[in-house]
Amino acid sequence: MLTRFKPMPVALAVDIGGTKFEAATVTHTGEIGRRVRVDSAGASDAEELFSRLAGIVGAFDLGSVDVCGVGSGGPMLPNGEEVSPLNIGAWRGFPLRSRIAELTGLPTFVDNDAKALALAEGWLGAAVGASNYIAMVVSTGVGGGIVLDDRLLDGALGNAGHIGHVVVEPEGTELPDHVRGVLESEASGTAIAFRTGAPASEAPAAERARAGTMVGRAVGSIANLLDLQLAVVAGSVALGYGGDFFEAAQLECDRVAQLQHSAGTRIIPAGLAGEGPLIGAAAVGFRGFGHRIGEP
Amino acid sequence: MLTRFKPMPVALAVDIGGTKFEAATVTHTGEIGRRVRVDSAGASDAEELFSRLAGIVGAFDLGSVDVCGVGSGGPMLPNGEEVSPLNIGAWRGFPLRSRIAELTGLPTFVDNDAKALALAEGWLGAAVGASNYIAMVVSTGVGGGIVLDDRLLDGALGNAGHIGHVVVEPEGTELPDHVRGVLESEASGTAIAFRTGAPASEAPAAERARAGTMVGRAVGSIANLLDLQLAVVAGSVALGYGGDFFEAAQLECDRVAQLQHSAGTRIIPAGLAGEGPLIGAAAVGFRGFGHRIGEP
Repeated sequence: MLTRFKPMPVALAVDIGGTKFEAATVTHTGEIGRRVRVDSAGASDAEELFSRLAGIVGAFDLGSVDVCGVGSGGPMLPNGEEVSPLNIGAWRGFPLRSRIAELTGLPTFVDNDAKALALAEGWLGAAVGASNYIAMVVSTGVGGGIVLDDRLLDGALGNAGHIGHVVVEPEGTELPDHVRGVLESEASGTAIAFRTGAPASEAPAAERARAGTMVGRAVGSIANLLDLQLAVVAGSVALGYGGDFFEAAQLECDRVAQLQHSAGTRIIPAGLAGEGPLIGAAAVGFRGFGHRIGEP
Repeated sequence: MLTRFKPMPVALAVDIGGTKFEAATVTHTGEIGRRVRVDSAGASDAEELFSRLAGIVGAFDLGSVDVCGVGSGGPMLPNGEEVSPLNIGAWRGFPLRSRIAELTGLPTFVDNDAKALALAEGWLGAAVGASNYIAMVVSTGVGGGIVLDDRLLDGALGNAGHIGHVVVEPEGTELPDHVRGVLESEASGTAIAFRTGAPASEAPAAERARAGTMVGRAVGSIANLLDLQLAVVAGSVALGYGGDFFEAAQLECDRVAQLQHSAGTRIIPAGLAGEGPLIGAAAVGFRGFGHRIGEP
């Protein structure tokens, strides 16, 4: 007799962010139930920070939950066996997956938050129905996740999709601790603040458009390289800049992506807004569990 | 009762090139048997050209052959249902797969020759044992194929791996009929001849190194993007330039690929030389047939 999964599984979704941790139950159709959050900034050490996470996880009755999915900033080892999120200084090589699994008693799966976003946008966001696309986050840093041939790309250590380090302007901004010329050195909030000497949110129109141009160039290159035609973009810089950003991005993408397979590539805002991280974390859990999201 | 494949299948491998067509039998362990070739240049029309191909295919006893695999220049529709190879003017939208299938009576699979090379190099060449790598051809044009998570990437129309159209030098060479700044506009034999006014084979050392730098920049970007650490490079420009090219490529790749997952990325010559196209075509056939190459 075949072992079968429960037909309608429920995930505990956990979003590990630099300023907050959030947890929620998410059904296999993407309905978010109860949500609980806690500040994650200013922790004194790794254990103190984990105890905050344990506090919100402990607020759930896990008896009706089948799997735990976690989205976190990277870098990390495959499946989050060790995470060192750039935005969480207290965790360096922290064994996040095993600690959450121990805490919850659930099968637990961890992935990069930008890859989680890619799953979320394909499931319920702006990439529904697309078999080939990139999802990006353009905020303090620049990250991404790629779905190709209906599969989320992992790569050797699970970091595939990392569009922030594609060269777009070889003679560009010399941002400290970055390779000159890569997208994150040009279009991240950190780079824009460095270039303008003011918060990225106050950047003038020309600088907003320039960030869009750089993103469009990277997307055009990737459309040519990978035979995909859709980029969905989230993050405070992209969404905050809005039209100035997206119009410039599309213009440069149109210039670069002119092959039979890439002409017509679209760059559009992500569709899930604030629910993206939890939906994405749930999708990471369902993916690990072997459950095709959206199917009974 | 399960239907099982013959345990040790044999492929008819067909390499569709701009100057020659070649066919050979290839066993599931990659042993090349009889090889037959014919000139492919100067055909008057599509049917005359196909009749040359039919001539060499007809030289084989296909009774002991299980599958036909074909590598061809692109662009093409998925599985080569229509091919329009840039280097074969007589075929535009030519239904290559169905015509060869009709001719041979075999299950027939067609793919881009650079993707075929990627399969070949992972099977028996310089990428044996690697789960994540790119194979490239740097000759008259620049193409490639990518294996990630042990799978050859296809993309929406089957053109994934097309590294020649990744932006590497936005203010670069204005090669006719090309987007400014992409790798093929800088490092292809066509681009080098345009830049120097002489055949690419006569380019001075600085130009050879410059071509390597551009390839290294693209590979570094892709190592960062896709979490892979190996590029195997074939083609008359790369292999003809040798050390001048590969040393410059490695230097620039080292500059760009500095992430935890990309540092140490290697750029090395392809391993199969003249046998690569036939081994690759056979691999396309076995892949389509559902036979894992190298396994009984």
